[in-house]
Amino acid sequence: MSKWFPNTVRFEGPSSRNPFAFKHYDADAVVAGKAMRDHLRFAACYWHTMRGSGADPFGAGTMRTPWDDGSDSVENAQQRVGVFFEFLGACGIEKFCFHDRDLSPECATLAESEAALDRVVTTVRAEMERTGAKLLWGTANLFSHPRYAHGAATSCDPRVFAHAAAQVRRAMEVTHELGGEGYVFWGGREGYQTLLNTDMRREREHLARFLHMAVGHKRAIGFTGQLYIEPKPCEPTKHQYDSDAESCLNFLREFDLLGDLKLNLEANHATLAGHELMHELIVARDAGALGSIDANRGDTLLGWDTDQFPTDLYLTTQVMLVLLSMGGFTTGGLNFDAKRRRESFDAEDLIHAHAGAMDAFARGLKIAAAIIDDGRLADFVRTRYRGWDEGLGGAIERGEHSFTSLDAIAKSQGAIELESGRQERLENLLNEYI
Amino acid sequence: MSKWFPNTVRFEGPSSRNPFAFKHYDADAVVAGKAMRDHLRFAACYWHTMRGSGADPFGAGTMRTPWDDGSDSVENAQQRVGVFFEFLGACGIEKFCFHDRDLSPECATLAESEAALDRVVTTVRAEMERTGAKLLWGTANLFSHPRYAHGAATSCDPRVFAHAAAQVRRAMEVTHELGGEGYVFWGGREGYQTLLNTDMRREREHLARFLHMAVGHKRAIGFTGQLYIEPKPCEPTKHQYDSDAESCLNFLREFDLLGDLKLNLEANHATLAGHELMHELIVARDAGALGSIDANRGDTLLGWDTDQFPTDLYLTTQVMLVLLSMGGFTTGGLNFDAKRRRESFDAEDLIHAHAGAMDAFARGLKIAAAIIDDGRLADFVRTRYRGWDEGLGGAIERGEHSFTSLDAIAKSQGAIELESGRQERLENLLNEYI
Amino acid sequence: MSKWFPNTVRFEGPSSRNPFAFKHYDADAVVAGKAMRDHLRFAACYWHTMRGSGADPFGAGTMRTPWDDGSDSVENAQQRVGVFFEFLGACGIEKFCFHDRDLSPECATLAESEAALDRVVTTVRAEMERTGAKLLWGTANLFSHPRYAHGAATSCDPRVFAHAAAQVRRAMEVTHELGGEGYVFWGGREGYQTLLNTDMRREREHLARFLHMAVGHKRAIGFTGQLYIEPKPCEPTKHQYDSDAESCLNFLREFDLLGDLKLNLEANHATLAGHELMHELIVARDAGALGSIDANRGDTLLGWDTDQFPTDLYLTTQVMLVLLSMGGFTTGGLNFDAKRRRESFDAEDLIHAHAGAMDAFARGLKIAAAIIDDGRLADFVRTRYRGWDEGLGGAIERGEHSFTSLDAIAKSQGAIELESGRQERLENLLNEYI
Amino acid sequence: MSKWFPNTVRFEGPSSRNPFAFKHYDADAVVAGKAMRDHLRFAACYWHTMRGSGADPFGAGTMRTPWDDGSDSVENAQQRVGVFFEFLGACGIEKFCFHDRDLSPECATLAESEAALDRVVTTVRAEMERTGAKLLWGTANLFSHPRYAHGAATSCDPRVFAHAAAQVRRAMEVTHELGGEGYVFWGGREGYQTLLNTDMRREREHLARFLHMAVGHKRAIGFTGQLYIEPKPCEPTKHQYDSDAESCLNFLREFDLLGDLKLNLEANHATLAGHELMHELIVARDAGALGSIDANRGDTLLGWDTDQFPTDLYLTTQVMLVLLSMGGFTTGGLNFDAKRRRESFDAEDLIHAHAGAMDAFARGLKIAAAIIDDGRLADFVRTRYRGWDEGLGGAIERGEHSFTSLDAIAKSQGAIELESGRQERLENLLNEYI
Repeated sequence: MSKWFPNTVRFEGPSSRNPFAFKHYDADAVVAGKAMRDHLRFAACYWHTMRGSGADPFGAGTMRTPWDDGSDSVENAQQRVGVFFEFLGACGIEKFCFHDRDLSPECATLAESEAALDRVVTTVRAEMERTGAKLLWGTANLFSHPRYAHGAATSCDPRVFAHAAAQVRRAMEVTHELGGEGYVFWGGREGYQTLLNTDMRREREHLARFLHMAVGHKRAIGFTGQLYIEPKPCEPTKHQYDSDAESCLNFLREFDLLGDLKLNLEANHATLAGHELMHELIVARDAGALGSIDANRGDTLLGWDTDQFPTDLYLTTQVMLVLLSMGGFTTGGLNFDAKRRRESFDAEDLIHAHAGAMDAFARGLKIAAAIIDDGRLADFVRTRYRGWDEGLGGAIERGEHSFTSLDAIAKSQGAIELESGRQERLENLLNEYI
Repeated sequence: MSKWFPNTVRFEGPSSRNPFAFKHYDADAVVAGKAMRDHLRFAACYWHTMRGSGADPFGAGTMRTPWDDGSDSVENAQQRVGVFFEFLGACGIEKFCFHDRDLSPECATLAESEAALDRVVTTVRAEMERTGAKLLWGTANLFSHPRYAHGAATSCDPRVFAHAAAQVRRAMEVTHELGGEGYVFWGGREGYQTLLNTDMRREREHLARFLHMAVGHKRAIGFTGQLYIEPKPCEPTKHQYDSDAESCLNFLREFDLLGDLKLNLEANHATLAGHELMHELIVARDAGALGSIDANRGDTLLGWDTDQFPTDLYLTTQVMLVLLSMGGFTTGGLNFDAKRRRESFDAEDLIHAHAGAMDAFARGLKIAAAIIDDGRLADFVRTRYRGWDEGLGGAIERGEHSFTSLDAIAKSQGAIELESGRQERLENLLNEYI
Repeated sequence: MSKWFPNTVRFEGPSSRNPFAFKHYDADAVVAGKAMRDHLRFAACYWHTMRGSGADPFGAGTMRTPWDDGSDSVENAQQRVGVFFEFLGACGIEKFCFHDRDLSPECATLAESEAALDRVVTTVRAEMERTGAKLLWGTANLFSHPRYAHGAATSCDPRVFAHAAAQVRRAMEVTHELGGEGYVFWGGREGYQTLLNTDMRREREHLARFLHMAVGHKRAIGFTGQLYIEPKPCEPTKHQYDSDAESCLNFLREFDLLGDLKLNLEANHATLAGHELMHELIVARDAGALGSIDANRGDTLLGWDTDQFPTDLYLTTQVMLVLLSMGGFTTGGLNFDAKRRRESFDAEDLIHAHAGAMDAFARGLKIAAAIIDDGRLADFVRTRYRGWDEGLGGAIERGEHSFTSLDAIAKSQGAIELESGRQERLENLLNEYI
Repeated sequence: MSKWFPNTVRFEGPSSRNPFAFKHYDADAVVAGKAMRDHLRFAACYWHTMRGSGADPFGAGTMRTPWDDGSDSVENAQQRVGVFFEFLGACGIEKFCFHDRDLSPECATLAESEAALDRVVTTVRAEMERTGAKLLWGTANLFSHPRYAHGAATSCDPRVFAHAAAQVRRAMEVTHELGGEGYVFWGGREGYQTLLNTDMRREREHLARFLHMAVGHKRAIGFTGQLYIEPKPCEPTKHQYDSDAESCLNFLREFDLLGDLKLNLEANHATLAGHELMHELIVARDAGALGSIDANRGDTLLGWDTDQFPTDLYLTTQVMLVLLSMGGFTTGGLNFDAKRRRESFDAEDLIHAHAGAMDAFARGLKIAAAIIDDGRLADFVRTRYRGWDEGLGGAIERGEHSFTSLDAIAKSQGAIELESGRQERLENLLNEYI
């Protein structure tokens, strides 16, 4: 039993009223041919979980972390690692994600920062071995330090590019050493605050250059994990270049990187861009680029990244419908890039937050599997497009028509009677399973 | 003098208080080496100007159009054409844009609709010859008729695809016959209302197929005008595939159409997508794809396409800064895809609306030219990125570095002192010229 | 059995897969001490159901209404009434709402319009008697006709005020004659498009004057139904004066109308104003002004009134939690001010849409009742504020303290240890019942 | 000359290209019968100017403040005060605003915090005497400390209410001692994160109780300055009770506080609430409650409080039009509650930012005065409503009509021909002066 998280969450079934029990997530239970744990591949994030203070633009931190002495020492950092793995155990979460500077402090020089990171990573490795937890992906923090104020790979100052390169180099190596399955690029400062002082073309080219170097380094060190890029439209800058799934795909295509990077999609980032997460997932899936998911949710009536825990069953069902449609994750997983509200400052709130979200995804999985098993939804869509399977539609798809040949058909085919889209009927069908 | 527009707008200079005079737009005046008319290439749109009734989702039409007998007859359609060219003359607008079904009625059959269109086009041609007005671009209305409820090129029903193909075929030919400089695709129904009933992958493939046919037809008929695609994120559907500049570029790259289509960008569509128009212009410019502009503005506190006339000098200055930076339009122009408010129902309101917008762009042109002439803005940006012109930055740009070589540099280069981005200073500089 | 709606929806229980069956709404089943029908008081609206064409700003109507000859005749209007009551029967909806001009046509003169209305109302009354359906509330359409372009009660032209007064006079009398339980004011044009041409102070005073006349007329004719005002922030104008619950309350307080009008709250209007419906319900409830609900939902990623059918169980649960907390409706009900998507054009889509929404509210009712029965949610809130029940908090509430006396207490009370807000725990609790 | 701000900004006229000169703000120049300084009553805020670090949710502070030793000592706090008054002098700003905890540190106990504040206030007083600068208003920071996580006056814990009361008591006394003309309440934590754990009714009652105590204390100490309440809709909480002008007015009316508090309106808070600042100003003005203005601007494409410097001439013109229409400020002023972008980290950026905003307001003043002098705008509005000045409209305004009497008029008055609202014409008129 954990000192800091005395309540270990276990599956007790839907009728349990124990707030520290799973009602739906039963890791070994088989749904749609696979254990829940293998479908969902839950990960906790180190940054919000261990380093989130609860500070916001109008107030100081509130979180109660009695294990943390508040210092920037390596020892304190190592101490936190132990607590994190206790937390993973208490929640039954088997994977995690980190930034380099979450784990260990930024020191006076880059070399010192690396040395500190190495020492903390040693503790991480030991904890991974002790507990069996795995690294879903790693990343480098290229946005918090003032040197990144004008961007990292897109900074107007090439020395910053060099610093960022060095940081990613080591973060990728650490990820590799810890057996990570992926590495994420989130460009929180790779954008602009005003177009007046910005050379967008040059900045985007530098970003592409940076990612090509990352691909090269990956090969150089033999890292076989998946590289991901993470879309987000605004915040902290007015505009980030990786603003949504399609802007990322456009960038990857333009700079010949689509074979090397997939997308790490986040619900809150999708809604900030004006899209539903399901839209972004399908866009990515259809481009062969759906890599991993930052599982959270936003508040669509608020205009910033609230990073709330995903408990909406409509959201979790939609995610699982898309995931099941593509055969599930390969290297990716559901990483809870989510934070407790500032007012939920007890350690036990970490447990409530994660356990509730895990249950919500377990239900989403069961609901999605049931809808697929039911078959009516997929049948409806297939039937709706049946005109494209043969005859006129088939010929068009095969490239056998031109405007001229279609003109003749259009003039002879008579009035067109469409079929209803039945949106309300399909929404009801979803509710039958929720 | 026009019967319906008795006030012809002429240049009287900045001190004029005549509401029917230009204070800034002097067509022949040379700015930055070219006559204003050749920089601005103003066009009026037939749809809002002649066919906009003022109806909205909560009320009937209000516009007073005494020249229109309210019927769907070809004669009435021809009568409207004459009024439109009177209007162009009264405003000093030398170009125009149209949809096929704006000009002439949708009839019982496609063949009848085409015959009606041909008769009205004859009148248009005569008016063009009489007045010297030119066609900036044409397009087909693939969104108003119920047959397009599920999309046109992306309909689930291939018969609709065929009908749309026939309509574009003829609209492109008419555009060609009238000497049009371009042809626009706006996919108002090419999207979805719900992902539940939609096969997005297949729909996007059909859209690409449709555009490839358009490219083929263009070549077949010898039309050398520019094809454009017009981004808009939502409205009327929940999502259109051409949602913003980058989603369009991604689509064009994916389906190998980037060589054949440029973008027609609209201010209100940009803000609905969460972007400033200037952002969209630069994205397009940097991809070599800035084709034409639908000059209007939205209300960023409202969530739909208000299509207001562009009178904001910040907006017009930004547009002209980008246009001047790329050497101006080639085939494109500033098309006022804008409508009077529903409460501005007099014919003279059409004049106020267009004349005010023309003046606002004339000022934007003069302001942008002055800022470029001043040189401080461009100097600031150039200086800001000077580190990339040689030394470390130059080597990175030339591909001479890897993460490993940069790591060594980063470890030796010491702390980085950035330079201020000076956003406020640059905003003040802009105000010096507005 | 209805000619146009051959499928009568009946309760078959949660395991039914019949799309034309209720899975949860069992009108006579008792929940929390009352029959479902008496909790939910469902109403259908005449406007969307019978008059919604599916037209949108970019396209013509799509709805298939074979019973409607498309004319503006009184006979056609009467024919529609019969179909509407068939529809109510097929869905098991026992109440309805209407605008005067939904029922019958706008004629050349006000007197003719009234005469037409009277004839159609005769048919309505006969159908009400035949079927037992009741009128939840009536209203007058003061927004569609061009005369209302500048507002009705807030028009700059007093003749429009007079016309609106005459229209409301008759609509209120008809509501009274049909035994209506309420009368609604929605001010779709009572606002402005631009502040430049608007005297807001005077317009708001005219609106207050109008409502005082309405109160007077209500008394004069002996109508004892409840008057409601309906908040909505924008669309069709840039701003309506009744923009949200608090702006309405402010207005009612300013002009001494709070005793005479309650609020008719709509989900989509709440989200357009940036609020959750639950927020608006609580604001109104706490002011003693929660009257009735327009049950629909918006798409928070779109910026206009989508008026979708409410199928989100979180939404329906929240509504029912507030309603149960205030003892349920008195004169109000759940009026489906919602429309099928433009692509759902079959008559049967009307049934799917309403039946699904009714089921969603039935589940919301059962879930809310279960949460109240469980008691933990209410206990948590009560406990959270316990400091205010006695001691320091009690004394403050009783008015026994000043800044000076509290200063002394603050200086002696030592550091304050707050309790966690437990938001995530409470969100999980909700999910236990959904 | 200031050590830290070597460039003193002086008026050099519109043709100056000196970035450290005013082009339009000439403090003593008379516009519309009064010196510019007396119209504009500029104030700088202590918090952003001296305490803004440039930290954001994704990064550390960037601002270069070589005068600040980074400690929480009183001596450091006093040192900052001197720098602030140097800054005011360099910019020619004659007023300022502060929070208690901006000036001096939060100490271990309330008594110690007060003692620290007193020592810093002594320095402030000396600097005010030395420089002649005046205090526009003071306030207390009731949102940054963790004790306020659940609110201050609306906390679920009455001890927090007591602490807040003590803090406001002293902040108000300090404001009084320094000759402040007003005192502001901004309730950044007076709202909720989730309705699930909130008793909104009770919280609003506590807030009213708190404000009544403030009114009592004001009288007790003989402070004759104006109390203000500041609307803001969201951020940092999901919802604050003072969400916009009308919600504040509703609250003040409900709890009988409208005679004691006016509104302090902020541009960015207005747009976050979905309103233009001009709307909020008019709402407040018409209720006799327009007190003071926090002069900044937001980015309407971003969903949080960007607090940018107000350089948009449309915005400053609108503000000055409303201010001139009410005869100008009495106790209030234009307080630059605005911050440099995080990337503008040099001390000189503070000067650019303020000087540019002052110039923008000076131009707004001149433009507004010219539009008023021109007279056409006001004439248009007056003429538009002329029907209400006598005849039918006059009788309605005097209360001489009922629905019944108006019905008779409506039936006899014939069809109504409205006049155009001329929005585009009026927008052009504005541009004639910008």
